[in-house]
Amino acid sequence: MIIIGEKLNGAIPVVAQAIAKRDGEFIRQRALAQAKAAQDEDYFEEPVPLYIDVCASTDPSVELETLKWMIDEVQAAIPDEMDNVAIAVDSPSASVCAEAFKFCKKPGIVNSVSMEKDAEGRIKTDIVFPAIADTDWGCIALLCESGIPQSVEDRMQVFDKIMAKAKEYGIAPSRLYIDPLVEAAATNQAAFTLFSECCKRIKDQYPDIHLTSGLSNISFGFPGFRKPLNMAFLALAMNAGMDSAIVDPTNKDMVGLMYAVELLKEQDEDCMNYISAHRQGLL
Amino acid sequence: MIIIGEKLNGAIPVVAQAIAKRDGEFIRQRALAQAKAAQDEDYFEEPVPLYIDVCASTDPSVELETLKWMIDEVQAAIPDEMDNVAIAVDSPSASVCAEAFKFCKKPGIVNSVSMEKDAEGRIKTDIVFPAIADTDWGCIALLCESGIPQSVEDRMQVFDKIMAKAKEYGIAPSRLYIDPLVEAAATNQAAFTLFSECCKRIKDQYPDIHLTSGLSNISFGFPGFRKPLNMAFLALAMNAGMDSAIVDPTNKDMVGLMYAVELLKEQDEDCMNYISAHRQGLL
Repeated sequence: MIIIGEKLNGAIPVVAQAIAKRDGEFIRQRALAQAKAAQDEDYFEEPVPLYIDVCASTDPSVELETLKWMIDEVQAAIPDEMDNVAIAVDSPSASVCAEAFKFCKKPGIVNSVSMEKDAEGRIKTDIVFPAIADTDWGCIALLCESGIPQSVEDRMQVFDKIMAKAKEYGIAPSRLYIDPLVEAAATNQAAFTLFSECCKRIKDQYPDIHLTSGLSNISFGFPGFRKPLNMAFLALAMNAGMDSAIVDPTNKDMVGLMYAVELLKEQDEDCMNYISAHRQGLL
Repeated sequence: MIIIGEKLNGAIPVVAQAIAKRDGEFIRQRALAQAKAAQDEDYFEEPVPLYIDVCASTDPSVELETLKWMIDEVQAAIPDEMDNVAIAVDSPSASVCAEAFKFCKKPGIVNSVSMEKDAEGRIKTDIVFPAIADTDWGCIALLCESGIPQSVEDRMQVFDKIMAKAKEYGIAPSRLYIDPLVEAAATNQAAFTLFSECCKRIKDQYPDIHLTSGLSNISFGFPGFRKPLNMAFLALAMNAGMDSAIVDPTNKDMVGLMYAVELLKEQDEDCMNYISAHRQGLL
């Protein structure tokens, strides 16, 4: 599994406060905590790939400079030896993504593109893909164009458009992290069924492509039982082919379940990640 | 899901003590706690079927009388209105099963048969099946004959023999709860793969048959991370077709995950069980 660590998002109140105060120590600590939670090079045969998601969530007029500041702090906090750790640059603005990724020392992931257009009428793929084409950057792509597609077929039509754009700009499928968009089960009883069917069709067409999702959308509208739903979703989604997740790496229940599913599905060679996670006290 | 409640087993030290002292109050309380945890008729549209497993785990010479005492206590504790609650009669001796089930007021489940032979050389199916044939009793059947079969094919060969016995004695597939036997993942890395493949083949042949398993075998040998493994197994096994489980109904994490998987797989009509479980404070 590839982990995209979600804890440095300005939408989180304590993070917004740290950003407003330019509290660099806070940013550095939160970055390091996620990095330590996801791997320990003394124990893991294979360090778990971690992308620390960095999202300013500020007024657009200051977003780029805020992202730069955050990225600088994160990079200052993560030692070079942690070579499994990189950054996911997160903005609703494709233009900001296409600038901010350059602040990173090593290739990470752009979060995200879709077939949606920005205020100038340009499709997000057309802004980001050419910017990252001659790099090793990955990119999350959401299967939406105008609102959330209601059916599997509608999602797959958007997928086909995204893959056509990827081909046009020379982005290999293995660099893409497709988020089929999972709705809240409280709103749409078929939320997981739709998600799962998309995963299967996408992996059938492109075996090397990545699949990703947030793990808490599914449980919106079920206050008090979000955790069982998020955990069930994680296990079932991994079983359907999802190989990355936007998650809190310090959430031991989630990470433990992730390792456990990998072990049972024989994706964890010789149980090494699981045993190591235990020794490290992660579980 | 059908729940087989595992908390009244003499192999559990506090239960053994209660049995030795003939502490009826203990047995009654533990039975009622499981029944309450699994359902609440004021909230659930559909009460969850619960079989309270009763296992004496005593010297064979006193096992039948002990089982009778335990069954009497359980039946005294469970009000008739809880009509989703019955008993699973649990003994390693098929002869004891074939006698003890008669102590129950209403049909339950015999735990269990297999193709193994008892001390007199009689196959367990040949003792239990004729005894329950003209009743509504269900029966758990383990896919073993001499030791745990090592491959999917070996397990399926035992399965075929059991189904031939069931046909011979007039036991419809819908009365059977097949336990494909899950090994510890620490011992056999392919433990879940084997289990899952058996589930699929069994359900393909007999869509109305039930599948069951304990939820803690999988994690033997991983002290300190048994819970994530057991939970991952539960979710993945349900996804593979397992529709019943031998579990502690008072374990909120497990039961919550069970409801969550049913909801996501659209097996929980209109999210009623999940919402009800929340109102009841189960989750």
